[in-house]
Amino acid sequence: MGPDPAVAAVRLAVRRVLAELPQDGMVLAACSGGADSLALAGALAFEAPRAGRPAGGVTIDHGLQDGSDERADSVVRTMAGLGLDPSGSVAVTVDGAGGPENAARDARYAALDDAAHRLGAAAVLLGHTQDDQAETVLLGLARGSGARSLSGMPARFTRSRDVLYVRPLLELDRDTTRRACKAMGLTPWDDPHNIDPAYTRVRVRHEALPALEKTLGPGVAEALARTARMLRDDADALDDLAARVYTDLATTTDGNRVAIRLEGLEALPRAVRTRVLRMAAVAAGSPPGTLAAVHVDSVDRLVTAWRGQRHVDLPGGLRAVRRSGKLLFGPV
Amino acid sequence: MGPDPAVAAVRLAVRRVLAELPQDGMVLAACSGGADSLALAGALAFEAPRAGRPAGGVTIDHGLQDGSDERADSVVRTMAGLGLDPSGSVAVTVDGAGGPENAARDARYAALDDAAHRLGAAAVLLGHTQDDQAETVLLGLARGSGARSLSGMPARFTRSRDVLYVRPLLELDRDTTRRACKAMGLTPWDDPHNIDPAYTRVRVRHEALPALEKTLGPGVAEALARTARMLRDDADALDDLAARVYTDLATTTDGNRVAIRLEGLEALPRAVRTRVLRMAAVAAGSPPGTLAAVHVDSVDRLVTAWRGQRHVDLPGGLRAVRRSGKLLFGPV
Repeated sequence: MGPDPAVAAVRLAVRRVLAELPQDGMVLAACSGGADSLALAGALAFEAPRAGRPAGGVTIDHGLQDGSDERADSVVRTMAGLGLDPSGSVAVTVDGAGGPENAARDARYAALDDAAHRLGAAAVLLGHTQDDQAETVLLGLARGSGARSLSGMPARFTRSRDVLYVRPLLELDRDTTRRACKAMGLTPWDDPHNIDPAYTRVRVRHEALPALEKTLGPGVAEALARTARMLRDDADALDDLAARVYTDLATTTDGNRVAIRLEGLEALPRAVRTRVLRMAAVAAGSPPGTLAAVHVDSVDRLVTAWRGQRHVDLPGGLRAVRRSGKLLFGPV
Repeated sequence: MGPDPAVAAVRLAVRRVLAELPQDGMVLAACSGGADSLALAGALAFEAPRAGRPAGGVTIDHGLQDGSDERADSVVRTMAGLGLDPSGSVAVTVDGAGGPENAARDARYAALDDAAHRLGAAAVLLGHTQDDQAETVLLGLARGSGARSLSGMPARFTRSRDVLYVRPLLELDRDTTRRACKAMGLTPWDDPHNIDPAYTRVRVRHEALPALEKTLGPGVAEALARTARMLRDDADALDDLAARVYTDLATTTDGNRVAIRLEGLEALPRAVRTRVLRMAAVAAGSPPGTLAAVHVDSVDRLVTAWRGQRHVDLPGGLRAVRRSGKLLFGPV
């Protein structure tokens, strides 16, 4: 008799990722003790020796809840019991700008980067599932800023220190990881934050997604995850294309004044042109977070609906003007 | 004192559209008697004479509800009372494939096409609002088939007979049209279909969107509509690019066997390459409605992850094989 189907699914997902990693170095599972990353750790402990590769586990103690240190110790014992060696915890201090969720994430990745460097790891595996991906897409919907904000979490990425992060479980649902834990005899920890409706993500999980499932039918999470993958490809292609056009058409003077030749701009597809205009505004100093589609649209009308507009004001104390065959972006 | 703000908003939207239409010909409002299209008809009746342009109104009697003929007569009287001349109704017979909603839509557009031709209309205006757009995007989400399925309804389009359709109200919310009707003294008809939860769209309107508003905050409908606009631009740009690549790389033999030269395919961005592969499969006879992302992904692996796969089976009794520097699509 083979393993439980849920265990088999998680192992297969991990096996596929291991086959595609750089040859050398150990692989680390990042494990919170929750069902997703616990199933991931269990599958890595099983698959890594069969792939001839050392594997370890790391858990982060954010220090945000009473007893988080004991919690971390318990996760370390579980990971060590699975055979992940080394298994350890790193305590981090969460502070800094951008809200508590962003600060916790930054601290967590900095600690994982460190651990990966220290151990010469080829990759760090993260336990995010299709359900996490669907939630991320819905959170991006609220921003309404196009393909990039709907493209969810990448399956592979690096941050500042060239550590490769991989998410093997992005095509599995959360229920599969719960069933896998049960079949492996692992008891997941249910983070009380995961049911605290003060968090938007928790409300998306427990209210928005079930409402969408109810109205649109089952399979919404899968459809959202598939959408994310396709829109990520789209955004990559269009961003690359726009970057090449920008290099062709833009010149920078005085450090932060940007000029774009109008010639050729009008004939571009709107999706590329608006991206080029956005790049110019950001290069001239407009803050990407506050530069909105409505601003870019106004600049676009200087190109496509020119009837002598004076200028367009942009966030960051900038303006765009059309003059002598160019669009000029600079301080007011 | 100027007009009510809601009336002013609807009129401004119509005025902007009138300014961009071809010079000659009357403009028709398609009016069901519901708040959206009734506000549209009222605004058109006000703006058209000021733009020096004749304007008429047409309502469609689908014959699907008892008393629909009287209902149509009443809408005609209202439109005529607003000054739309001619105002008339067209009775259609709804039958045919694709489900009752599709059949009703096809019959409606065929009748509108006829009316527009008969009256030499420059355009037919439709009353869809930002809320309709948001609902359409969510309905597209369930399909999970990428940017095109999330790009909602276009602001301008033509169907088979070159009649131009325009949606002036796509950036206004439904509440604005209700308030505009009230301020203009017009009593909208509430179609009982609009509260029948047998329709997916009705459930999206009354359950899914409110749940999203509740979890993500107000402005979700606006964000969805903005997303639709941006993803439509993206899809247009990438589809055009893929069509040009397809023309360069594809050859068709025996009517429906398609060959694509591999050279150059691998270096394309994935978003373009998968579109080219989809075009090839459809050109070879695979039905677009059943050809899914998962099929295209399998074909893509013949290009990017070639390890001697035999072939990929595709809907429509087709298969794709890699041979002699080409991908071949044809009957099994």
